[in-house]
Amino acid sequence: MIENDSSLKTFLKDFLSIAGFKILVHGGGSVATQMADKLGVQSQMIDGRRITGEETLKIITMVYAGWINKMIVARMQDLSLDAIGLTGADMNLISAVKRPVKDIDYGYVGDICEINVPILKHLLTQNFVPVIAPLTHDRAGQLLNTNADTIAGEIGKALARDFNVRLIYCMDKKGVLLNENDANSTIYSLTREEFLQYKDEGVIRDGMIPKLENAFAAIASGVNEIILTRASDIHKGSGTYIH
Amino acid sequence: MIENDSSLKTFLKDFLSIAGFKILVHGGGSVATQMADKLGVQSQMIDGRRITGEETLKIITMVYAGWINKMIVARMQDLSLDAIGLTGADMNLISAVKRPVKDIDYGYVGDICEINVPILKHLLTQNFVPVIAPLTHDRAGQLLNTNADTIAGEIGKALARDFNVRLIYCMDKKGVLLNENDANSTIYSLTREEFLQYKDEGVIRDGMIPKLENAFAAIASGVNEIILTRASDIHKGSGTYIH
Repeated sequence: MIENDSSLKTFLKDFLSIAGFKILVHGGGSVATQMADKLGVQSQMIDGRRITGEETLKIITMVYAGWINKMIVARMQDLSLDAIGLTGADMNLISAVKRPVKDIDYGYVGDICEINVPILKHLLTQNFVPVIAPLTHDRAGQLLNTNADTIAGEIGKALARDFNVRLIYCMDKKGVLLNENDANSTIYSLTREEFLQYKDEGVIRDGMIPKLENAFAAIASGVNEIILTRASDIHKGSGTYIH
Repeated sequence: MIENDSSLKTFLKDFLSIAGFKILVHGGGSVATQMADKLGVQSQMIDGRRITGEETLKIITMVYAGWINKMIVARMQDLSLDAIGLTGADMNLISAVKRPVKDIDYGYVGDICEINVPILKHLLTQNFVPVIAPLTHDRAGQLLNTNADTIAGEIGKALARDFNVRLIYCMDKKGVLLNENDANSTIYSLTREEFLQYKDEGVIRDGMIPKLENAFAAIASGVNEIILTRASDIHKGSGTYIH
């Protein structure tokens, strides 16, 4: 979506029409991989997580916080959304620790410590739309790569104390599928018990498991509603709903 | 300085100790040129101004708003400066128009229309340190390349209505030189009349002329003091002073 001008425009218009305060957390992994290829830097992924060496950190900072973030901000301004593009380092929005090396050395990858809720509340109530690139910092000068889904989930949890939070995860598929070969087999509503059962039966598997585990953790922490849907469907009422 | 970790650190410490509200406007042209070279995009400059095609705009947005801006923001956070990295698109901080094509088509280059003074004042009085990348926007979704010196000058002028403004231009040389072959021939203080005379005599020439013309225009618009100095000398009282 980020790479297609007209679908981005359509998405931003849909985003604009969401009622209430809004925050956009974006990724950009595939653009970063293309840029790394062009610069002759190899992209190494483990379980969908990018190993982030010094050169890779530079590339993702350029791609996420530079090109993608500022392009989205400029497009939002055109739609009269007063966007402000941020990483976790800006205004000390999201502090993190460099992930300790156990079996795998992920490099400059950050596990979130704290979301700066007062700043987010301040921006939202002043009618700014935070556009957040998936980078955090360790408060000691180091930028860190942090998964966008995780940032969205942590922000949702942190804001749930003061707001009704709806978390919309945009993905390629229409939602959580009962049959991964049938694009129209979306599960409309999912409880924790159903999730555990589907997981046991192997119906839900791979990358969808951590995504849904995060989702149920967010619900347990007070997030009101989570929707997993295609970016083009955020107003269609389709997708998988978790309450 | 941007490319040298220890000189950047020293500079940021010097910057930290400047009294009063602070704004940093940075460039990054040489880093952008290196990145363009690596990506096989030719850098075309006319009178020190970069011709900014679509690919070049992408590269400078990545380098200025991404890597350089966020690296500086993270380093400032380490020094307990609550930095916020911004382009002119963020919070609609600086709107501009794409430069009309006369003799030269500069491409996506912006001439500043308006500085969002209320937002800057709000950020400063909340003790944030704006770190501004040299990009503006046209309010219709387009990012534009804008010279950092010009942005600093326009911000200085815009804030001069409400604040005592001191504008420090950091450069490679120690200041405006009486003899360009003598690095120690800095002119300590310069009036408009002296500038015009030096210009007539050919003592001051080339790129220094537009820089100083901007400086005197800023003084005429209420900026209290302008210093042209090396980044490493901002606390040494050296450099060229304009009042």
